[in-house]
Amino acid sequence: MTSTQWLQHYRQVMLPALEEALQAYVHAHIQPPALARMVAYHMGWEGPGAGPQVRGKRVRPLLTLLTAQAAGGRWQDALPAAAAVEFIHNFSLLHDDIQDRSRLRRGRPTVWYLWGVAQAINAGDALFALAFRALADLHTAAAGWPEPPAALLATACLHLTRGQYLDLAYEGRADLDEAAYWPMVEGKTAALLETAVVLGAYSAGLTHDAAQPYRTFGHALGLAFQVWDDYLGIWGDPARTGKSVASDLVARKNSLPVLYGLAQRDSAFARRWAHARPITEEEAPALAAHLADTGARHYTQTQAEQWTAQARAALASAPVGDEQAHRALQALAENLLRREA
Amino acid sequence: MTSTQWLQHYRQVMLPALEEALQAYVHAHIQPPALARMVAYHMGWEGPGAGPQVRGKRVRPLLTLLTAQAAGGRWQDALPAAAAVEFIHNFSLLHDDIQDRSRLRRGRPTVWYLWGVAQAINAGDALFALAFRALADLHTAAAGWPEPPAALLATACLHLTRGQYLDLAYEGRADLDEAAYWPMVEGKTAALLETAVVLGAYSAGLTHDAAQPYRTFGHALGLAFQVWDDYLGIWGDPARTGKSVASDLVARKNSLPVLYGLAQRDSAFARRWAHARPITEEEAPALAAHLADTGARHYTQTQAEQWTAQARAALASAPVGDEQAHRALQALAENLLRREA
Repeated sequence: MTSTQWLQHYRQVMLPALEEALQAYVHAHIQPPALARMVAYHMGWEGPGAGPQVRGKRVRPLLTLLTAQAAGGRWQDALPAAAAVEFIHNFSLLHDDIQDRSRLRRGRPTVWYLWGVAQAINAGDALFALAFRALADLHTAAAGWPEPPAALLATACLHLTRGQYLDLAYEGRADLDEAAYWPMVEGKTAALLETAVVLGAYSAGLTHDAAQPYRTFGHALGLAFQVWDDYLGIWGDPARTGKSVASDLVARKNSLPVLYGLAQRDSAFARRWAHARPITEEEAPALAAHLADTGARHYTQTQAEQWTAQARAALASAPVGDEQAHRALQALAENLLRREA
Repeated sequence: MTSTQWLQHYRQVMLPALEEALQAYVHAHIQPPALARMVAYHMGWEGPGAGPQVRGKRVRPLLTLLTAQAAGGRWQDALPAAAAVEFIHNFSLLHDDIQDRSRLRRGRPTVWYLWGVAQAINAGDALFALAFRALADLHTAAAGWPEPPAALLATACLHLTRGQYLDLAYEGRADLDEAAYWPMVEGKTAALLETAVVLGAYSAGLTHDAAQPYRTFGHALGLAFQVWDDYLGIWGDPARTGKSVASDLVARKNSLPVLYGLAQRDSAFARRWAHARPITEEEAPALAAHLADTGARHYTQTQAEQWTAQARAALASAPVGDEQAHRALQALAENLLRREA
């Protein structure tokens, strides 16, 4: 079988077990049922439009499970850690939607839009708490780690709040440069992907030192993932992404290509961006072309490729216990960077 | 020395060390400095009006430290657990202020009012994460516990979100009875006080079974504390509480005396409460007298006394390693229930 076929195989085996574990945690620990229903709606299990298509890709827990298996453990033992990272991811999305006043997520009304801001904050808090409750079921005791798994996850959450602080503080600012970008995405994206992988390595019983290549892999993969996301947000095919053309320009997102383009202050792109006037969907394609003229498109592609290369090299040097799962993990990383949506 | 003098002694020794530990956690783990400043403001350390008078009573961490010492441990070893419960308490206050749209806390503008809802949600999330990071520094390994400390704290947080869900869902409802009250306050108040005490017992190295009387003590104390809070919210002396007369009636809070009074549907109190018309500060004293006429005042006092008696009995049966700290803990419990503000 090819790497991609192995990935497909593991996906089919792991995802139903993961979904079952996630649901069991929600129903065992979240009370009353009305609060559990809000959480189940957000997770894509209940309510109008529920189904696999609105659940997200479950990339983070899949990274945890595949890493656990690749590193020589049993992926089943890593389910509490996989559930924990997925709950943290969903907590952050739920609060993010409130903070951004987003009314839709994956085509469905958001939790705050349906139940109000107060209950939505609380539902996010419940997911946060549930993550730590789930992680406590991880029974591997790996040697030589300076911190227990809960501290690893808490540190990832602290990085998340740092990234979120920066993202919110950057809104509406026109004086940012690329140096402002990396700490933001390190917190918002890379920290949790890194921790997803690290918890997989921990679950397999690797020592702290042996797990380092996996950590490097997760971190680089997280940055590559975000940079490519930024690319797709401007030059992605609307037919694939399901969003409007150059939607990140309309949203005035301080993404990597934008910050790169702004460094050329006399460019047509920078002059238009400096105007407070809203960027319409109609002018977005032309503005995306202006941005490409600054070299931002090429630069963003190059950055995504460099981080991917770093992720690939780190993964190749990581200790392998199960060759097939390791190949599936490679395929997952390659697919994430070749994705079109 | 009397019990109260021992309490005073331990307070003077423990509180500065606690404050130092709390600040060290914030400055070591919360980035960037602008986010740490929001947290430090909320904790009462920085900004206009900062000082001991706006920091709250630090009741929960004091319970953790005194229990650890009383149960035969060293209170210094319990500082990570004490910091964790205080961070969780403050996370819940910070989000609570957003949910209730409260503009003032202890006489100072709230975080959301100063920095906006989006940043305030994130600052609360940072405190939440910091609690679990702090708890990971607890190095006691107590025997026979089915769950690690992080799971105990996560479970308390899940109870908090249950209580908060109910509190928010009860707003504006006139059909509630006392059965609706207990699960709400069990979640909003008792769960975290109980866990503060339990983590103290854990820190002292007690087995799970030996810690049970302390758990019962914390739970009963939490309920007594909340019931007495409800009493003060209506019949407390404004000169002592710093709030307006019967402020919980003006706020239409579904407190225990109110739910008791509503059970008498033909009472003057129930008839007035059923009206949607806002309850003014002017009519609040008369309405409080009507409520007392239903027997609600006497009932609330009796409930506070019964839970206090249960807390007292449980504490008396708990294993003691340090007689002086145990007496200080008794004094803390008695003081909480005789407080006037």
